[in-house]
Amino acid sequence: MNFASDNTAGIAPEILRALAEANPGFALGYGNDDLTRRVERQIGELFEREVAVFLVPTGTAANALALAHLTPPWGGVLCHAQSHIMTDECGAPEFFGGGLKLIGLPGDNGLLAPETVAAAIARYSGHRPHQVNAATLSLTQASEAGTIYRAGDIAELARIAHAHGLKVHMDGARFANAVARLNASPAELTWKAGVDILSFGATKGGAMAAEAVVFFDPSIADAMHERRKRAGHLFSKHRFLAAQFEAFLARDTWLRLARHANAMADRLAERLRSAGIQPVWPVEANIVFALIPERLDGKLRAGGAAYYVRESDRLPGGMQADATDRLARFVTSFATTEDEIARFAELLQKR
Amino acid sequence: MNFASDNTAGIAPEILRALAEANPGFALGYGNDDLTRRVERQIGELFEREVAVFLVPTGTAANALALAHLTPPWGGVLCHAQSHIMTDECGAPEFFGGGLKLIGLPGDNGLLAPETVAAAIARYSGHRPHQVNAATLSLTQASEAGTIYRAGDIAELARIAHAHGLKVHMDGARFANAVARLNASPAELTWKAGVDILSFGATKGGAMAAEAVVFFDPSIADAMHERRKRAGHLFSKHRFLAAQFEAFLARDTWLRLARHANAMADRLAERLRSAGIQPVWPVEANIVFALIPERLDGKLRAGGAAYYVRESDRLPGGMQADATDRLARFVTSFATTEDEIARFAELLQKR
Amino acid sequence: MNFASDNTAGIAPEILRALAEANPGFALGYGNDDLTRRVERQIGELFEREVAVFLVPTGTAANALALAHLTPPWGGVLCHAQSHIMTDECGAPEFFGGGLKLIGLPGDNGLLAPETVAAAIARYSGHRPHQVNAATLSLTQASEAGTIYRAGDIAELARIAHAHGLKVHMDGARFANAVARLNASPAELTWKAGVDILSFGATKGGAMAAEAVVFFDPSIADAMHERRKRAGHLFSKHRFLAAQFEAFLARDTWLRLARHANAMADRLAERLRSAGIQPVWPVEANIVFALIPERLDGKLRAGGAAYYVRESDRLPGGMQADATDRLARFVTSFATTEDEIARFAELLQKR
Amino acid sequence: MNFASDNTAGIAPEILRALAEANPGFALGYGNDDLTRRVERQIGELFEREVAVFLVPTGTAANALALAHLTPPWGGVLCHAQSHIMTDECGAPEFFGGGLKLIGLPGDNGLLAPETVAAAIARYSGHRPHQVNAATLSLTQASEAGTIYRAGDIAELARIAHAHGLKVHMDGARFANAVARLNASPAELTWKAGVDILSFGATKGGAMAAEAVVFFDPSIADAMHERRKRAGHLFSKHRFLAAQFEAFLARDTWLRLARHANAMADRLAERLRSAGIQPVWPVEANIVFALIPERLDGKLRAGGAAYYVRESDRLPGGMQADATDRLARFVTSFATTEDEIARFAELLQKR
Repeated sequence: MNFASDNTAGIAPEILRALAEANPGFALGYGNDDLTRRVERQIGELFEREVAVFLVPTGTAANALALAHLTPPWGGVLCHAQSHIMTDECGAPEFFGGGLKLIGLPGDNGLLAPETVAAAIARYSGHRPHQVNAATLSLTQASEAGTIYRAGDIAELARIAHAHGLKVHMDGARFANAVARLNASPAELTWKAGVDILSFGATKGGAMAAEAVVFFDPSIADAMHERRKRAGHLFSKHRFLAAQFEAFLARDTWLRLARHANAMADRLAERLRSAGIQPVWPVEANIVFALIPERLDGKLRAGGAAYYVRESDRLPGGMQADATDRLARFVTSFATTEDEIARFAELLQKR
Repeated sequence: MNFASDNTAGIAPEILRALAEANPGFALGYGNDDLTRRVERQIGELFEREVAVFLVPTGTAANALALAHLTPPWGGVLCHAQSHIMTDECGAPEFFGGGLKLIGLPGDNGLLAPETVAAAIARYSGHRPHQVNAATLSLTQASEAGTIYRAGDIAELARIAHAHGLKVHMDGARFANAVARLNASPAELTWKAGVDILSFGATKGGAMAAEAVVFFDPSIADAMHERRKRAGHLFSKHRFLAAQFEAFLARDTWLRLARHANAMADRLAERLRSAGIQPVWPVEANIVFALIPERLDGKLRAGGAAYYVRESDRLPGGMQADATDRLARFVTSFATTEDEIARFAELLQKR
Repeated sequence: MNFASDNTAGIAPEILRALAEANPGFALGYGNDDLTRRVERQIGELFEREVAVFLVPTGTAANALALAHLTPPWGGVLCHAQSHIMTDECGAPEFFGGGLKLIGLPGDNGLLAPETVAAAIARYSGHRPHQVNAATLSLTQASEAGTIYRAGDIAELARIAHAHGLKVHMDGARFANAVARLNASPAELTWKAGVDILSFGATKGGAMAAEAVVFFDPSIADAMHERRKRAGHLFSKHRFLAAQFEAFLARDTWLRLARHANAMADRLAERLRSAGIQPVWPVEANIVFALIPERLDGKLRAGGAAYYVRESDRLPGGMQADATDRLARFVTSFATTEDEIARFAELLQKR
Repeated sequence: MNFASDNTAGIAPEILRALAEANPGFALGYGNDDLTRRVERQIGELFEREVAVFLVPTGTAANALALAHLTPPWGGVLCHAQSHIMTDECGAPEFFGGGLKLIGLPGDNGLLAPETVAAAIARYSGHRPHQVNAATLSLTQASEAGTIYRAGDIAELARIAHAHGLKVHMDGARFANAVARLNASPAELTWKAGVDILSFGATKGGAMAAEAVVFFDPSIADAMHERRKRAGHLFSKHRFLAAQFEAFLARDTWLRLARHANAMADRLAERLRSAGIQPVWPVEANIVFALIPERLDGKLRAGGAAYYVRESDRLPGGMQADATDRLARFVTSFATTEDEIARFAELLQKR
């Protein structure tokens, strides 16, 4: 019953197998191999357009490289106050971006609202050269709250951003979970809606360590070659990053794995509701937040359930937490089993 | 006949197997897993002392993190003018180090001589705060020329460095090849000789993507946690970095693989000599440099041999290259076969 | 009637004279001159202890150098959300600090409260290495709202900061105005209350361009020599920075000038009150904020008054601004005359 | 007899007077004042074209800002191995430039030769993304050796640079000395010869602290506003930077002062020759290098002459220094008097 994170799972069998299959023989290093070319074409086909693709091993690298590419050192990145780039990357965007500034904004359900973004752009524009000016909007899809932007939401946010000269980045560490849930294509959820660069995550979805920085406008991608190299993120045996991605995307494996993770989250949420516990935010991806009484928390852990507790000051307005309640975060993955959920449900019943 | 680099090879079977073996079940992310603990102990035992270990996927990351840790932004790193950090990392040390300065020094056979280092320290000391002052000495073992520092060489260089307040870094992307060749222990070639931090490479030696930054004084290692994270080099599924290293080191696999690579280089050098071509530098690790007449170069490539050509201005003093000669670099690896060498020898004969 | 800023004034006559007096003859460059030594002693005597002093031409330089010195690139600086370092330095602290993070906190009257700081430290501690951890507390004295921390306030804030390993920086661009107002010595308002480094401003107080970074613990100051130089802030003809400071401090000129500026602010506030307009925040230094109806704003400007308008979302809780009200900021200086205030009062009456 | 540097002199009377004249009244801060507008026009007229001008207080700031503007963090700056940016700015270009790389090149008489630059561009091009690629050529006019590039030299160097996509920066800390010596206009020695950005120095020429970064293509200058601000180099009382420059340029003061300095250097060189000591490099600006026997060195210093000694490994090929000879550098300035030279000559005679 490990719900600590989707990165406590291992490698999906299809992807592990792909590493072995890519192994025989020699291949040019540093991304000059055939497998890498293949994956680039594959990602282009998936997004229905020409793209520039840069594979890296971690989501932090993908985000920080993308943000540094879009934002000058004296620019600001508008993002949700609880976004991963803001709270969990130890200042990687600031480091890669030569001291750029992340500007954390509030937003219900972990999502940014158009009026919030518009107001922030108004505030962080002009007053040059004294103030950092907004240069980039970063959206997290699916969000840290486990919620999802619809294609229309993204289009509206991107329209506002572009109208003021900002570029749009999407942190898609859980992009698969969002696409799997929505009745929309990868293209509709990204460039067709105005996203300029996507951090396309495979690691949480079942890879060992593979993320793609996808440029929907290849003409601005050139210097990313140097950025990636000098950040130490250009693999010499690059074929093994490519192999992970190829297997992730082949035969819709990524969507199948994400659908499973989402379904497990749905089921877990259902079990919580059956036990009288409402999820804090809508369960749209593979994350469920719930307020758990202290005693139940103890029982769950004693019974073998693993999960993290977050600061309860993030709770939605109006929701009251008892002093002893804990804001628990449950994350499911491709590796979560129905049996785990069932055992978890039993622990819930026993309280 | 791929001698382009030791990173055109794939993953050694033992290490690929280890990835699969580490896969089942859940594991805490970000290096908080048992396998990572095990590898840390394993590396400590190998070096016969307490160490602090940080695993990262690339040699550039290992070097740049280590150098940034040892050198203030206004400090200089003394290194060989042909070292990888100087010529092939696209300014990664400067980026990670907030604008530190690499100071490239000449040195016969790809190695730095004590008097060269002493003179450079004298030159880059004092004149504060106008001049960058030497803060770190970085040695490459085995060197880019395929040569090796003996334990006594390292001790002498480190003694000079330490006497002037410099720290000593070793770029050990091919450390295995050096240890395999010399009759010395890993400890003797590092901390016992005065090395403060080692970039211990496994990738070129047979791993997929795994390097260890090894601190021989763990008391100075603390902030490296943040450095690695904010550089995007902390793997979430960290067990797979650890698994590679565990298998690399287990049962002396690393030395066995390196000995094979070295032996293949020896044999290749022998075949060259038999064909009347003397290696440019002593063949001590898994690299052979040779001046190849243009016509032979064409024949070798036509016959299927892959290798790189380097600028011939690096040639040793006194050695004359014909205008049409090419400075060819042949690199062997764990995956090089005797058959490849034999076929290469045949091509040599045919000229 | 120029109340736009205290930097729209020129140079105080005493300080301008000092530039001329320092001019004859040759002097060693880069701070190695006698006048610089004299100013260092003078500042030490003023603060009643041994200090290390680094003169620079701008407040942004002083703040950014000090914060970068106290905060690692992966550290956070706690500061008021409206502080100058947060809103008006175009990311200088982030640039000098290699991508450090400013964490803006709310605070009534432009001041930080102990409980706010304590809570922020609790939030930005631990969760290593994923989150930026609080490393420095920066207090602005006098504040951007024109208010002042008492010695006891500073001591309480510094106690909390130090108890958790943070260092304390004071942005004293208007330190003179604070000291002039309070019945306390420079020592009591800084190191005796726990301040580690002070940006001691002279520019706004009457200098041409001179600020001192004052270390109350000289033992941690060494590398500041390099920081200043490589930021381009080490003057070759350094004697002219020193001359400004010497004249600023000699015969309590700084306090006399600041008392005048403060008195002019008091008078201006009084005139506003007489006209039925209450200052928004307590008038303690040389800044007066007031809500001015749009029509009056027009009349004042038409009559020749110069001042800036700020976003009214900074207003204290409970205070309501009409949609047409403007949050005007009036800043007085050593150069403000009673006549200007009188003319301003006349404009107020005419509405 | 102070020949230590041209920055040991004070402020030229015309410029000191200008500070006083600019003082009365209020002026908008941060360069929004009329005097600044005037200086910008003045510099445009001087260079016979539209320019963008950014005033800063030090040459290090001017150079580092300009180089960072022209060079990406993964780019290289080609410069003379003995240039100020390479040896005396404590890594400022690397800091401002996010870790860019200075590539020091040899060159007779302190000057770079076209073939050297062409070879360096060839070496530092391609091999992307592994190697730092040459992005900028920086020329020092007058050079650290006291020599001068002719307009034709600059044009040839710039042609080579531009042909390969590099931009051309000129470090003109002693630009006045060069222009004063040559029969060429400021325009002919800069943009007409291909210079893209000039660091135009006034400090060494007689100002207190004032340098102008001059963009000959204003269309690429926009972000320099932010660069300067976030480096702490935007003066609030900016009119006093402008006042220095206005007086420096007015009525050809800058050329008159430079001609005097150059003439004093000529005379000093003549006196050395009369004493049997040949200047090491051609004396073209206000710097004279000479090999001084140890005993004479002692006598000169005992007699009150101040100057610096440099490492004699910089000597031209073929010139032999006795072990006890010292490479003395004598720098004259607007403040050097004929009397000083005469007294120096007397000391020379007494040996």
